[in-house]
Amino acid sequence: MFPLKEIDDEIRAIRDDHLSGARELAQKGAHVLVTLAEGSKAVSGEEFQSELLRTGRALIKAQPSMAPLVNLVNRSLFALQEEIDLEGAKRALVTTAQGYANHLQRSVERIAQLAFPLISHGLVLTHSFSSTVLAALLHAKQEGQTFAVLCTESRPQYEGRALAERLAQAGVETRLVVDALAPSMITDAEVVLVGADSLSIEGLVNKIGTYPLALAARAHKMPFYALCGTEKFLPADYTLPEESPKDPQGVWPDHPKGVEVMNRYFDLTPLEYLTGIVTGEGVLSPTEVRGIISKRRLHPWLR
Amino acid sequence: MFPLKEIDDEIRAIRDDHLSGARELAQKGAHVLVTLAEGSKAVSGEEFQSELLRTGRALIKAQPSMAPLVNLVNRSLFALQEEIDLEGAKRALVTTAQGYANHLQRSVERIAQLAFPLISHGLVLTHSFSSTVLAALLHAKQEGQTFAVLCTESRPQYEGRALAERLAQAGVETRLVVDALAPSMITDAEVVLVGADSLSIEGLVNKIGTYPLALAARAHKMPFYALCGTEKFLPADYTLPEESPKDPQGVWPDHPKGVEVMNRYFDLTPLEYLTGIVTGEGVLSPTEVRGIISKRRLHPWLR
Repeated sequence: MFPLKEIDDEIRAIRDDHLSGARELAQKGAHVLVTLAEGSKAVSGEEFQSELLRTGRALIKAQPSMAPLVNLVNRSLFALQEEIDLEGAKRALVTTAQGYANHLQRSVERIAQLAFPLISHGLVLTHSFSSTVLAALLHAKQEGQTFAVLCTESRPQYEGRALAERLAQAGVETRLVVDALAPSMITDAEVVLVGADSLSIEGLVNKIGTYPLALAARAHKMPFYALCGTEKFLPADYTLPEESPKDPQGVWPDHPKGVEVMNRYFDLTPLEYLTGIVTGEGVLSPTEVRGIISKRRLHPWLR
Repeated sequence: MFPLKEIDDEIRAIRDDHLSGARELAQKGAHVLVTLAEGSKAVSGEEFQSELLRTGRALIKAQPSMAPLVNLVNRSLFALQEEIDLEGAKRALVTTAQGYANHLQRSVERIAQLAFPLISHGLVLTHSFSSTVLAALLHAKQEGQTFAVLCTESRPQYEGRALAERLAQAGVETRLVVDALAPSMITDAEVVLVGADSLSIEGLVNKIGTYPLALAARAHKMPFYALCGTEKFLPADYTLPEESPKDPQGVWPDHPKGVEVMNRYFDLTPLEYLTGIVTGEGVLSPTEVRGIISKRRLHPWLR
């Protein structure tokens, strides 16, 4: 189906990967595009562009809620539209994809620095596993801050256990509760820090359980921040597809026939529930984020 | 330790029972008191009273958050205070305890009738396993109502799975989600019905996950009712003890040493989050409930 067998395999791996965060998936996506540029048998810049479009669409389709993938593909298409000759187009794609992967890495580091003042003391409540939140917490620990972290197990896949284990290994005082208990524990915390899968005008898409935490934070006037690089901001004209249902067995193996088990991974938290959004470019208010998103547009071929 | 070996065993069984609801536990408690009345070796009414006090305190201590147990003991002490002779005291205790057990049963039936108009159509969202909610749903089904129920798995013990299974067996259209997803599904529902472990001026004590559902219901102006007989209203001067921590292994077996796993079963939902409280005596507003509770007092010996 794709120009190269490796690409087919890599995209399938991205599609089936429900453990990696959005950034890791986008980095894998960047690798796919570099693979395409290096191995393409296209004979013209035009043919190469259409290979990119086909590959890019497949990448987005593999994980349509992962904004960094959408932005990677979108940015690559814009980068190639001025390139008519084949070699120029290939070079432009490699530069764009690698530059994007580097940007993602720098974004995490910059977010960790900007989140530092939020992790100054007391208890940090987080949810599920965000590699950006992990990086920020490890950075604060490395800089000598004293704090504890309350993790959630994050059913159905228990990613929060993995986060707790990583933090404990790094010497951070770490606690863990089931998801249903976390909103009641919010008054013990100083701040809530969550990651993001994507951010749009509609709100923050993140692992289920984020919305109840946001509700509790609002009820108790607790600061609630999303650590979310601008690469996770969706173009205003991108329609986030409804989440595809996940395997019911992942929630309740061998459940009785008469019970319909619904398995979803993401919920939506309206932007106004966020105290701030920590991006690589600064800590933004929901209003500032709205302004940025409203200016982002999809490449015409992706509309 | 107790006047009778059976009582010792029965109280220990109540203490270790984390699956039965408050009503079942109170019915078991009533059985303990009848056993005491029938088997006591006390030689005077006074001695019997002090046996009752000792047994009653042990019952409360076994499950100090279970209001019907507190009220059973409290009511029994009041019933015996006028009885000076031994046989009169024993008879009074049997009458009170059995009357209370009967009252509990009637309370459930009456609540099922009063909740009927709330289960008239659409999707009912419930949480964990409440035998009162189950009875109300089965009653509505029996009366021919058409509705579906969305259950939560209710970590860490998955009582919600048991509820889902019971409903499905009864032919009710039943769905189940993990706890973290339920608050986001609230807009699909017509009403939220939850049970109660106890109700006081501070709020509704129920299985963790109730509070996040109440927050979501409030945010979406969704009717949120507790099915909660007045036997679950705590006397105003009863101090609900802080919940004792449960076994961390129940949340995460063999968790890494560096992670402190906190296992709790109950959360607290402020009364004003409730649209109404369905009791055997009618559907009450939070203000009406406050009025009733403020008049309830502990027997002087229990203060």
